[in-house]
Amino acid sequence: MGPGYTRRAALAALLVLASTVGAQAQAPQGDPLPSWNDGAAKKSITDFVARVTTPGATDFVPPNERIATFDNDGTLWTEQPNYFQAIFAFDRVKALAPQHPEWKSEQPFKAVLDHDMKAFAASGEKGVLAVLMATHAGMTTDEFRKVVLDWLAAARHPRFHRPYTDLVYQPMIELLSYLRGNAFKTFIVSGGGVEFMRPWVEKIYGIPPEQVVGSSGVVKFETGADGTPALMKLPQMEFVDDGPGKPVGINRFIGRRPIFAFGNSDGDLQMLQWTMAGAGARFAGLVHHTDAAREYAYDRNSAVGKLDKALDEATAKGWTVVDMKNDWKVIYPFELK
Amino acid sequence: MGPGYTRRAALAALLVLASTVGAQAQAPQGDPLPSWNDGAAKKSITDFVARVTTPGATDFVPPNERIATFDNDGTLWTEQPNYFQAIFAFDRVKALAPQHPEWKSEQPFKAVLDHDMKAFAASGEKGVLAVLMATHAGMTTDEFRKVVLDWLAAARHPRFHRPYTDLVYQPMIELLSYLRGNAFKTFIVSGGGVEFMRPWVEKIYGIPPEQVVGSSGVVKFETGADGTPALMKLPQMEFVDDGPGKPVGINRFIGRRPIFAFGNSDGDLQMLQWTMAGAGARFAGLVHHTDAAREYAYDRNSAVGKLDKALDEATAKGWTVVDMKNDWKVIYPFELK
Repeated sequence: MGPGYTRRAALAALLVLASTVGAQAQAPQGDPLPSWNDGAAKKSITDFVARVTTPGATDFVPPNERIATFDNDGTLWTEQPNYFQAIFAFDRVKALAPQHPEWKSEQPFKAVLDHDMKAFAASGEKGVLAVLMATHAGMTTDEFRKVVLDWLAAARHPRFHRPYTDLVYQPMIELLSYLRGNAFKTFIVSGGGVEFMRPWVEKIYGIPPEQVVGSSGVVKFETGADGTPALMKLPQMEFVDDGPGKPVGINRFIGRRPIFAFGNSDGDLQMLQWTMAGAGARFAGLVHHTDAAREYAYDRNSAVGKLDKALDEATAKGWTVVDMKNDWKVIYPFELK
Repeated sequence: MGPGYTRRAALAALLVLASTVGAQAQAPQGDPLPSWNDGAAKKSITDFVARVTTPGATDFVPPNERIATFDNDGTLWTEQPNYFQAIFAFDRVKALAPQHPEWKSEQPFKAVLDHDMKAFAASGEKGVLAVLMATHAGMTTDEFRKVVLDWLAAARHPRFHRPYTDLVYQPMIELLSYLRGNAFKTFIVSGGGVEFMRPWVEKIYGIPPEQVVGSSGVVKFETGADGTPALMKLPQMEFVDDGPGKPVGINRFIGRRPIFAFGNSDGDLQMLQWTMAGAGARFAGLVHHTDAAREYAYDRNSAVGKLDKALDEATAKGWTVVDMKNDWKVIYPFELK
């Protein structure tokens, strides 16, 4: 090995070093959760990650088994004054109304068009389903995707006057990134519609569509007259990924029990129970909405995101409960700018 | 920056270089598909991968969109003299028979216990379903996983006298690995049961459970008297991931259209059509079983893995058809030893 070779090797090595340094510069330096105040919640997360990622430690978990599941509404983004997908559905009813003159006198559509939420509530589960089916079916999956993206680009939240995708929680974005940096695979497990989330979650959360579990309607494969295949969304529910449906959805889509799960409502309780009942080290967390000034404050009596039984069980079992007001330095990414 | 700093930086850089070289040494060197004979099939694969992975090229596809889907039975492992899961179900009927004395006189169980495949065939789809439900339900998902692994450890293929998991195709294992080495995400999309495949595919194919799409039965979340949650497998089909069900399954589980798909039978046709109907560069492949000496030879008239319409469409549209006898140097990994 002559000096010429050595010099070239060193040069190549320096280029490699430069690219490595570049890559490292993008990774979080120092505190991986800068938007979290120091406290029990933050410490429970970093302690858990240290326990399961230290090679040779009792609680070490191999990277392929580091499955982390997150609820979406109220856990990764805001869910008030109503689930954003419900607001989307109401907006779609209004947009589609000219093609449905009968809706002017037909419930639950009349209630939506009249902004009469009391009458809509009176239509019950049947009314919710009718609105969902009228706005989420009768088109191809590709067409629905476009409808969702167009709505997200135009719609604004009534209180914050920002796109709904701005209303994601900065501390949770950091948590997702921190877990992925520790070789966790991050999944969404949401009661929301899977086709409603998949078009945007990769860009917003860094979670690819194939790592999203959610509620869904029946989809049918059809071949057009010109031979082009399409997937048609039919007006029929197929799967409700909520409550006891969450462990079922996790089993169906992931096929592996999470070691880390985060939710914010009673609809997440069974997911947390299922996660904690596995062998070895486990983490269960709840976001408790305690901040009416910066976001919203609600729990046991809320129609949206009711947190009652899960809060009791978390307290009894020592699961992590995030006090939004005290544990989070900032709520939304736009506060950082 | 003094000379001391430079020397330390160069040393650090060389260490980085060394680790990089180490990582590269683990990647395939030279021919990434050594068990494939040179020919049109192999060339169509390597040409396609080059087209979609060359930055700046017209057909470049970003890594996160490089979704590749593979059928399992007859595409990744052997499916003769019967689907291995069917053999598993028959073996389970025999193992469970002592607990079911009524099966001695009750069809289709009597036929299975008498090895009377003609009588079993006469019981039709209803008979198949009865055997599936009797052997794949009535236990938790964790219990079923153990049953599958125990069977795989003990059972031997009637012709090759080897564990069924030895009868995977070496050229396809190389293809999976080659695609992953080019940042593809590899998925199984099989008519087989998802709970039957997930316990072993990670070890055998390097495909994690969460990248397996398959047929499934209804699963129910239950909490035991001691508060322990479990997922019970109920005797009811939920989803058949075959034929037009494959694009539906892909949409449901992956939520993104593959750019590369491989199958071997008419049950894969709609998956291939769905894959090819997307925009940009696309690859569709079929394994044609032409090798009675080393494996099996069958296509248009086979009860298992019938390949008829898909073969015509592949020929008409110029999809890749692998001639097992001529395109593959070896069939099974054990031939290499």
